[in-house]
Amino acid sequence: MLNYERYKQAPVMNYPERQWPGKKIQKAPIWCSVDLRDGNQALIEPMVVEEKIEMFQLLVKLGFKEIEVGFPAASQIEFDFIRQLVERKMIPDDVVVQVLVQCREHLIKRSIEALRGVKKAIVHIYNSTSTLQRDVVFNKDMDEIKAIAVQGAQWAKQYTSDFDGEVMFEYTPESFTGTELEYALDICNEVQEIWGATPDKKIIINLPSTVEMTTPNVYADQIEWMNQRLKNRESIILSIHPHNDRGTGVAAAELAILAGADRVEGTLFGNGERTGNLDILTVAYNLFSQGIDPELHLENIREISDVYERCTKMEIAPRHPYAGKLVFTAFSGSHQDAINKGTKAMRDRKNTFWEVPYLPIDPSDIGRQYEPVVRINSQSGKGGVAFVMDTFYGFKLPKGMHKEFADVIQAISEKQGEVAPEQILNEFNSNYTDRKEPIHFLKAQITEAEDDVEFSTFAKVRYMDHGVEKVFEGVGNGPIDAVQKGLEKELDIEIRVLDYSEHALASGSGAKAASYIHLLDVRTGKTTYGVGISSNITRASIRGIFSALNRLLY
Amino acid sequence: MLNYERYKQAPVMNYPERQWPGKKIQKAPIWCSVDLRDGNQALIEPMVVEEKIEMFQLLVKLGFKEIEVGFPAASQIEFDFIRQLVERKMIPDDVVVQVLVQCREHLIKRSIEALRGVKKAIVHIYNSTSTLQRDVVFNKDMDEIKAIAVQGAQWAKQYTSDFDGEVMFEYTPESFTGTELEYALDICNEVQEIWGATPDKKIIINLPSTVEMTTPNVYADQIEWMNQRLKNRESIILSIHPHNDRGTGVAAAELAILAGADRVEGTLFGNGERTGNLDILTVAYNLFSQGIDPELHLENIREISDVYERCTKMEIAPRHPYAGKLVFTAFSGSHQDAINKGTKAMRDRKNTFWEVPYLPIDPSDIGRQYEPVVRINSQSGKGGVAFVMDTFYGFKLPKGMHKEFADVIQAISEKQGEVAPEQILNEFNSNYTDRKEPIHFLKAQITEAEDDVEFSTFAKVRYMDHGVEKVFEGVGNGPIDAVQKGLEKELDIEIRVLDYSEHALASGSGAKAASYIHLLDVRTGKTTYGVGISSNITRASIRGIFSALNRLLY
Repeated sequence: MLNYERYKQAPVMNYPERQWPGKKIQKAPIWCSVDLRDGNQALIEPMVVEEKIEMFQLLVKLGFKEIEVGFPAASQIEFDFIRQLVERKMIPDDVVVQVLVQCREHLIKRSIEALRGVKKAIVHIYNSTSTLQRDVVFNKDMDEIKAIAVQGAQWAKQYTSDFDGEVMFEYTPESFTGTELEYALDICNEVQEIWGATPDKKIIINLPSTVEMTTPNVYADQIEWMNQRLKNRESIILSIHPHNDRGTGVAAAELAILAGADRVEGTLFGNGERTGNLDILTVAYNLFSQGIDPELHLENIREISDVYERCTKMEIAPRHPYAGKLVFTAFSGSHQDAINKGTKAMRDRKNTFWEVPYLPIDPSDIGRQYEPVVRINSQSGKGGVAFVMDTFYGFKLPKGMHKEFADVIQAISEKQGEVAPEQILNEFNSNYTDRKEPIHFLKAQITEAEDDVEFSTFAKVRYMDHGVEKVFEGVGNGPIDAVQKGLEKELDIEIRVLDYSEHALASGSGAKAASYIHLLDVRTGKTTYGVGISSNITRASIRGIFSALNRLLY
Repeated sequence: MLNYERYKQAPVMNYPERQWPGKKIQKAPIWCSVDLRDGNQALIEPMVVEEKIEMFQLLVKLGFKEIEVGFPAASQIEFDFIRQLVERKMIPDDVVVQVLVQCREHLIKRSIEALRGVKKAIVHIYNSTSTLQRDVVFNKDMDEIKAIAVQGAQWAKQYTSDFDGEVMFEYTPESFTGTELEYALDICNEVQEIWGATPDKKIIINLPSTVEMTTPNVYADQIEWMNQRLKNRESIILSIHPHNDRGTGVAAAELAILAGADRVEGTLFGNGERTGNLDILTVAYNLFSQGIDPELHLENIREISDVYERCTKMEIAPRHPYAGKLVFTAFSGSHQDAINKGTKAMRDRKNTFWEVPYLPIDPSDIGRQYEPVVRINSQSGKGGVAFVMDTFYGFKLPKGMHKEFADVIQAISEKQGEVAPEQILNEFNSNYTDRKEPIHFLKAQITEAEDDVEFSTFAKVRYMDHGVEKVFEGVGNGPIDAVQKGLEKELDIEIRVLDYSEHALASGSGAKAASYIHLLDVRTGKTTYGVGISSNITRASIRGIFSALNRLLY
């Protein structure tokens, strides 16, 4: 039996005046990466200095202007890393580095020491304020816990008074979502008063969901409630810091932005303690997919993934939004068919907007390829196979041929599972274009009468029949007709060409053409397609007829 | 440059009358697993029949009462699988099997054929209704698309009229979230009218976010809007089927439940096309964590994970909520310390409710172990090391000793990365309990005066000093004092015992005790702890003194 009775529902305030559900996100928030702190501390193998520097450089390249670089008072490694950033002059002028520190005097002093030489810094102090932590961890009452924050704010101010660069302050009531709102508001108001925030010298109030405790709408309510009530709001940058314990971190961030958050702390791919921090990339790509500038340079998700995986030794899951290996695949036949049609419609109509079913964005916009879009397995329909033949190899199979060839692939995939594009091409060749036994076209001499009368085409065709070279002649209304007539007589058969199509396989007059012949055996009623390829369109057609005949008769 | 201008914001209706943000989830929805259909079709290697059967049996064991078993008209494998379930009598009487089928006559006939012998079935028909798909995929207008649904509903009714078992109908306007709401409502109302839904014979209307297009609050608005307007609502089971393209599938499901959804379709661990279907397990465990019966048997997430990974060949990501390898770890020292204190407070107060900081649920409630809760790396603080020593090995290090020993571990972890609990114990032993050089306690004869006067304890101690066996005697106020005094004279040192504690390492009078001695070298001002272990508490203390002396003086 599942022990659900051991758990209490997280308290939820009554807040009917909420406005956020009627709002839309209009622009990107200020992003703050905590990859080098929250992210790094949760790694099985924390990054070594060179990995941290590679990660820092990636973050700068992506356009992060605020980067939390560590908890320098807690670890010599983090202290040294900041010194390296300074001494190797790796911090661009427009990037603010942020350090996290508890509200303790010697730790604050030491953190500010670590920042020596930094041009723009954020000193980020925090203490835990939740009901539970006050009780079981600190054994302090509300006033005592508030005093910690107030004292910390004073120390931060005091020890940065002669700091060379620009300093901004940030305060986090840690475990905010487990804290009584009135109390959290009270602490935040007192802290900002000490710091003397003004619209020109703003401070950051950061409200984390340290552990995700509720459905994300409740977090949005809490953020809006604070947003409405914080004193001196115009001097405050309201920041959020979601985690993902309930798997709703991205939603919590988005709803909190609707609720008035100006700034978002998170990590690439949601790296972080337990289920991770907020995944900034997903939120940013979500903005992008809605036509909003995410204000990050996210054109190349492969590069981001590569650096991330190398530095953190974490793997990106195959279904991770935007970055996962499988997210631009479509396994279902109907999906593949719809993608096929949607892509064609966009192209035909010269749409400026991306609108393709089942592909919320164009993978190529973020450095992914069409190549893995379609995988063929036993669940794929005919559309998928035709799509692969077109997208990968340029064969535009006539619609009537889709099912015939898809059945070939389906039979294979039911046995072996997924069928790769190369194998689909191989099957196409062995079933159609290389189908040269027992009859095999060698060459033809075609003579067209100069005046355009019926039965004006004469064909003399040299071919192999069961290993013996033979010749036949035919007359007809064009080369296909002439060859067909000649073949009927030569082989004593009765056939009809039901459909015919041909297209160049590449641009340019010397390019090869593919010809598709839909052939009926009149005596049996059986039909099949044949395919021929040649740089000469007539030869391509004749090869198509031979291909079909081999499939139909032998 | 990121091409964000190619994308349009998904249209959002104005819906100020929404009620769902003020609601709370009160109970579990009806769950319907689509693992064997939506989940299976998106696998790189689709399951073979025996894997499907193992998955089906797992779903039954977990308590799913509605299981979509396939798309039998689309694939012979899926048809055969259903036949096996029937013929091998694997479907319990209280489990309804569901088949998906397009609104096409021969496919509906074939699907119902597949169900022959099933006692309770859901025939689930769908067609795509979105603006985009009507336009680019089907090239049909609203009336023509509606006619497909209506015709499909009629066929479903007609071809099940002589079906042996119970049949329920389900209709999905596929790509619902891209469909005009009024139009979706119109189609659903027509379909249910054809089926003649009554409160005793309900039908299912399933509203998918086939591709997640908006923040999850918008999906909730859409569901509530439909919920308020569906005709004959009391005869309808309102079902949702979220996907996860924006990484907010779980949130979308939860908010849609607030908005009135009765039933949820999804998969284990969110397996499915692209970024996956809704992860039912996360939603269910989220309910559980709030004290709500999820109505699924989720006590053993390891077993669920094992079967899932074996059948699907997909791996569960290490930060996947509840199931990921890392989600019950705490890397941060302050987190470890808080977990330590929270666990202790719960135990001391005999709390019936689970309340521990940073651990939203008790891992053991879902078959996870405490064992991996804490990993020690260079970012961990002193609390983590003490917690490991207590939780794993039962050593309750005195508070003053935490930092001293944590520094030892931190120095190691800064070099090698993570330090496993065994290594922490080894370091503890080599630094304290096995610290026997150059002086090594052998045995002691303690004589207590019968009347309890000062300096009533006489100790005669035999020990090794640089390999030579020696003896000293001392008199003091208790055995520790007597040994200390004797040692000062013997070794010509001046020491003070600053603190002393001792505890049994297991219950029972024969159990060993661990003794912690905090020792000051008066001449240098240096202090250290020493630790001794023995089944005799006096000998444990003397060993503790020797351990400390070896650390302090040599």
